[in-house]
Amino acid sequence: MSEIPDAQPFTPVSDVGEFGLIDKMKAALADAADARDLVAGIGDDAAVYRVGAAGSDGPSRVHVITTDALVEGVHFDRTYVPLRALGWKAIAVNVSDVAAMNARPRFATVALGLPNNLSVEGAEALYTGMAQACERYGLAVVGGDVTASARLTLSVTVVGEAEERAVVYRRGAQPGDLLCVTGDLGSAAAGLRVLLAGKDRMTAGDGAADDPPQPDLTGFAYAVERQLMPQARLDRIEAWAEAGVRPSSLIDVSDGLASEAHHLSQAGTVGAVIDAGLLPVHVQTALAAQRFDERAEAFVLYGGEDYELLFTIPEAEASKLSPDTYAVVGQVVEPKEGVALRLPDGNRVPLEAAGFRHV
Amino acid sequence: MSEIPDAQPFTPVSDVGEFGLIDKMKAALADAADARDLVAGIGDDAAVYRVGAAGSDGPSRVHVITTDALVEGVHFDRTYVPLRALGWKAIAVNVSDVAAMNARPRFATVALGLPNNLSVEGAEALYTGMAQACERYGLAVVGGDVTASARLTLSVTVVGEAEERAVVYRRGAQPGDLLCVTGDLGSAAAGLRVLLAGKDRMTAGDGAADDPPQPDLTGFAYAVERQLMPQARLDRIEAWAEAGVRPSSLIDVSDGLASEAHHLSQAGTVGAVIDAGLLPVHVQTALAAQRFDERAEAFVLYGGEDYELLFTIPEAEASKLSPDTYAVVGQVVEPKEGVALRLPDGNRVPLEAAGFRHV
Repeated sequence: MSEIPDAQPFTPVSDVGEFGLIDKMKAALADAADARDLVAGIGDDAAVYRVGAAGSDGPSRVHVITTDALVEGVHFDRTYVPLRALGWKAIAVNVSDVAAMNARPRFATVALGLPNNLSVEGAEALYTGMAQACERYGLAVVGGDVTASARLTLSVTVVGEAEERAVVYRRGAQPGDLLCVTGDLGSAAAGLRVLLAGKDRMTAGDGAADDPPQPDLTGFAYAVERQLMPQARLDRIEAWAEAGVRPSSLIDVSDGLASEAHHLSQAGTVGAVIDAGLLPVHVQTALAAQRFDERAEAFVLYGGEDYELLFTIPEAEASKLSPDTYAVVGQVVEPKEGVALRLPDGNRVPLEAAGFRHV
Repeated sequence: MSEIPDAQPFTPVSDVGEFGLIDKMKAALADAADARDLVAGIGDDAAVYRVGAAGSDGPSRVHVITTDALVEGVHFDRTYVPLRALGWKAIAVNVSDVAAMNARPRFATVALGLPNNLSVEGAEALYTGMAQACERYGLAVVGGDVTASARLTLSVTVVGEAEERAVVYRRGAQPGDLLCVTGDLGSAAAGLRVLLAGKDRMTAGDGAADDPPQPDLTGFAYAVERQLMPQARLDRIEAWAEAGVRPSSLIDVSDGLASEAHHLSQAGTVGAVIDAGLLPVHVQTALAAQRFDERAEAFVLYGGEDYELLFTIPEAEASKLSPDTYAVVGQVVEPKEGVALRLPDGNRVPLEAAGFRHV
């Protein structure tokens, strides 16, 4: 009689989450890496490697590369996301990662998984949105793969370029630096809330009525646009280059301010104190919070998908920037102070790293 | 009474197929392209762009970039594909596209879509296979994205490098050139046939027996290995560089010899005659054809996934190569002769462009 073999171990992927799986990928692939010319691998918004002939004069140039996928049912819902907006977003979120290295996007490749219920016209709408984003951000799609797929999937890789000395990483913040963001935060999450409410109302109609109720987007056009067609802040990258300014650390806000502030704290090498009174909140974000009985602060801290830039910079450097192009939201502090939110009464509450999670 | 709005046009994606959808992507994105530094965009095995500071001395250097996704239920079936092999294959097929430009792979990014029924251990097996392929081919995975997904999906992008003058394209064949391939063809398709037969036998067991019948792979280990863990022919790229040889055109055999020969004919700019008697067929391919009552020739011409290199080269150039590193399978001819198979009796039959299709 043969013995029953040991069962294969089965640890659900949800036990380790997206970041845990990426850490494991990094660990498994680090030894195999041919690290020649590699400046930074997995772990920042994009990887960095040197290009250009050795011994050429002029500053050393690098390319950065990043990949991000949008998966139906995980990152988006086709019932309220137009396909053109989806094509735009797939490019823009990758451009945002390139901007978060202080680099400029140049080339993209796109791997599309198309389900049977997507039409050729739908695929063309995706392409149109991609083309518009490429035109806006000055990059070219140079490679494509199309396969069948159970769910609509857009995997985009973007290559960007920079001078090596201009690249800004997540690490680099120093106690005393200002903690700053471009634009406003939380509006993309507010827009998602509005879209979901609109979907609920449509679904409630249940096909019984001849005229199903339309989603009520009145007064929330800005927030909805922020969710559907986010803007990568390349304009700020260009302004910094013109002003000769280089932040000490930089990340884009894809998972909410709390999570990104923890990334900049470099596993506790520095701390960060965020002032609750300084959070840049758009009026529609505040109104959406009111309407849906949520806190605008929660949209800002844990909402995600704003694709603004969070950066640290010495005060003297910041003074070279036009004051209407960024908001100071706090300060980099000593590591023992941790990552905290300072309330209007002066009390501090520790901020959890929790942020927006698709997995 | 409101009028009924026109229905949205709905053309199923299957009407235009993978190549049609890529052509449409190319058309939609061409105008938006910032083509600075771009040597070749969508349409070859990989795109080509210049890197390196302008004005540097030495030969002009380029990077090539390619992306290819493997999707569960479309490209593979987890019932008979080990996850380690799948990780290997996802890297190897992209390395093969880089080799097909006469370039060497350097960096990769990986976007994984993981379903709930994959374990952390399964993800680690994927990573192990990727790491082994990276070590074998001398490249590093520098970027990763992991998301949830209904079906296991591996989207890989590989960046390679070459001197600009060394790059070989699909175009470039001249009448009189020899048509050559590395290795043997059809064995990957034979291996797939063996695996599918094994799956059928397992399924026939239907859980009723205590010992379900094992798939019969006896005698087909080579063919099965070719299907599960294909080799990218970087060794040939290196041998050509050492011998100072540059083919006039080049492509990798992912869709079967017939389809690839049509690609090299450049939409009829040249013709190609393939000799049926010269097709390099492994004994296991012949035996599998016999076993399953198919024609070995069909595996070679329409099977696909061999990832060997198909190239054209002037006879004088070919004579610099070691004769056991390639097989001559035919000749490039005048365009009016088309793409044809020459039978042993001297008759020619036109070859359809049909090849292996996942979509």
